[in-house]
Amino acid sequence: MSDADAAVSGLGGAVVAEYWAAAEARDWAAFGALLADDVVYEAPQPRERVSGRESYIRFNAEGFPGDWHVTVQRIISQDRAAASMIQYTEDGISQTGLCFFDLDEDGRIARITDFWPDPYEPPANRANLASRY
Amino acid sequence: MSDADAAVSGLGGAVVAEYWAAAEARDWAAFGALLADDVVYEAPQPRERVSGRESYIRFNAEGFPGDWHVTVQRIISQDRAAASMIQYTEDGISQTGLCFFDLDEDGRIARITDFWPDPYEPPANRANLASRY
Repeated sequence: MSDADAAVSGLGGAVVAEYWAAAEARDWAAFGALLADDVVYEAPQPRERVSGRESYIRFNAEGFPGDWHVTVQRIISQDRAAASMIQYTEDGISQTGLCFFDLDEDGRIARITDFWPDPYEPPANRANLASRY
Repeated sequence: MSDADAAVSGLGGAVVAEYWAAAEARDWAAFGALLADDVVYEAPQPRERVSGRESYIRFNAEGFPGDWHVTVQRIISQDRAAASMIQYTEDGISQTGLCFFDLDEDGRIARITDFWPDPYEPPANRANLASRY
């Protein structure tokens, strides 16, 4: 692996850490500076899509008006891709958020794929195969 | 980044690709060989936990008896961590699975954190901020 590759390898993680710090701070200027002009956000569960930097800033700033907070649990990055696991808390309710990011050649976020897994009850057929916590 | 670090950097991705190939093949010997003796599996949504290689093989072999298939969509790996996004299909129904993996110093899978995000309807307050697909 060359030094250039190694530098790229760390890039996704650093950008994603800045992304969540800017979101937590509601610093939409810093948040927007991390995004490609034509960034595409997709949430496969509700099949929501937002295209373009300004629209995506508005989606975050206006779509989530509450007093929420995010804590980064882990970021895994490779080349220009990264995955993050965060804890999102609002009104004392906490939820795990999972995001996949793809950066463009300028190191800006070009694609975000966002998941919010909800609790569910496991099927009875594997009750004897796992414990509950 | 040293050559040794670079070698480790690719390890998680290769092991996770083998993990899904072995699961798809129901090759539980190959599957088990990728796992640490004391592997811990956790699914935070149903709060299920399985500890130990033999228990985790049984969980997979007996807990999911159907004619399911998995297709790997992407794997992101860094050092001894990796995240995978797969498509799981059974009886014509397809679902996205998201897994985070941690490898031990021998390159075996020591920890698996598993998520299965379900579809949901988006809240009305952001209907004007995103399109649906």
